[in-house]
Amino acid sequence: MSSAYAPPVSRLITELSKLPGVGGRTAQRLAFHLLRASDKDAFALADAIRDVKLKIGFCEICFNLADEPRCRICADARRDTDVICVVEEPSDIMSIERTHEFRGRYHVLGGALSPIDGIDPEDLHIAELYERVRAGGVREVVIATNPTTTGEATAHHIAGHLRTIAPELTVTRLASGLPVGADLEYADELTLGRAFAGRRAI
Amino acid sequence: MSSAYAPPVSRLITELSKLPGVGGRTAQRLAFHLLRASDKDAFALADAIRDVKLKIGFCEICFNLADEPRCRICADARRDTDVICVVEEPSDIMSIERTHEFRGRYHVLGGALSPIDGIDPEDLHIAELYERVRAGGVREVVIATNPTTTGEATAHHIAGHLRTIAPELTVTRLASGLPVGADLEYADELTLGRAFAGRRAI
Repeated sequence: MSSAYAPPVSRLITELSKLPGVGGRTAQRLAFHLLRASDKDAFALADAIRDVKLKIGFCEICFNLADEPRCRICADARRDTDVICVVEEPSDIMSIERTHEFRGRYHVLGGALSPIDGIDPEDLHIAELYERVRAGGVREVVIATNPTTTGEATAHHIAGHLRTIAPELTVTRLASGLPVGADLEYADELTLGRAFAGRRAI
Repeated sequence: MSSAYAPPVSRLITELSKLPGVGGRTAQRLAFHLLRASDKDAFALADAIRDVKLKIGFCEICFNLADEPRCRICADARRDTDVICVVEEPSDIMSIERTHEFRGRYHVLGGALSPIDGIDPEDLHIAELYERVRAGGVREVVIATNPTTTGEATAHHIAGHLRTIAPELTVTRLASGLPVGADLEYADELTLGRAFAGRRAI
């Protein structure tokens, strides 16, 4: 479709359209934006993409993204070491950090268990979580996998195993219920059911 | 907001969020996609961005994007030279090419006249269009600026001037009317008015 464009333009449109949620039209719009942008701005984006691939790896403790052996949270001595929050992806850490409700450390699984997709415990950083707990000093593990089928299964799998290796450990799960600002009329029955099951005295 | 991320990740999110239609959340999603992508794919995008800035300029004849002095359409001897289609932007050429209805050459103005935004005839490639017509061999000029206030004004400005410099020249404008598949009930009155004014015998 891009035959009327010079090859570098076609190639940029092709590469942009590989991004998630970016179709042909959007890729074309982004390409023309970059063509109009200053060299400085366009090169800044190109360099940022290269840099992230060259410099970013995983934290040796929690598997968060890191540009040093340890991520910024594991390297921060002010963070509590006795609570570990288990998440599926590094991006979940940012969502939780935004709440300012959690001052402990994280553990990134790298996904959720999904036998149907061939994702078994050994494909995730689950063994490393157990090692951290066995090493001692951990009082609570908050399992913050997504409230989805695979996230729930992963939470139950991990919680069960943690109970066997550290009976004293508190294992918690994020509350599930109505989102703030939601309308009961439009809540799906699973969410409303969870909200009932998890109701609290006020 | 990206303080929990390593600097290269924050920087990539910042650069991505400068793209049109890309907010903070989308930029984060794209950044994580690039982090998960193979080095090869990510570098292909970075290189495509660099390349387009280093290699792409404007066609010396029609001001389409080009990686050589002339664009692929102006360099294509099979295209008719006696019809010139005038468009606002290089991306409009691709839209027209997709129709397979036009076999002539193009002329890219680089925008539309808009005195209120300080865009006067000398800011666009209008003089170069007149030169091409004066050089001879042009039978028809199709003015395909957008059917917007500024696009219409630009079309009338150019048509008026072309009549004075080349009285024999046919100057046409793309038809305006109901889009194919549209419903009269939902057509705006301007479009419906145009469709009436431009009605044809069947």
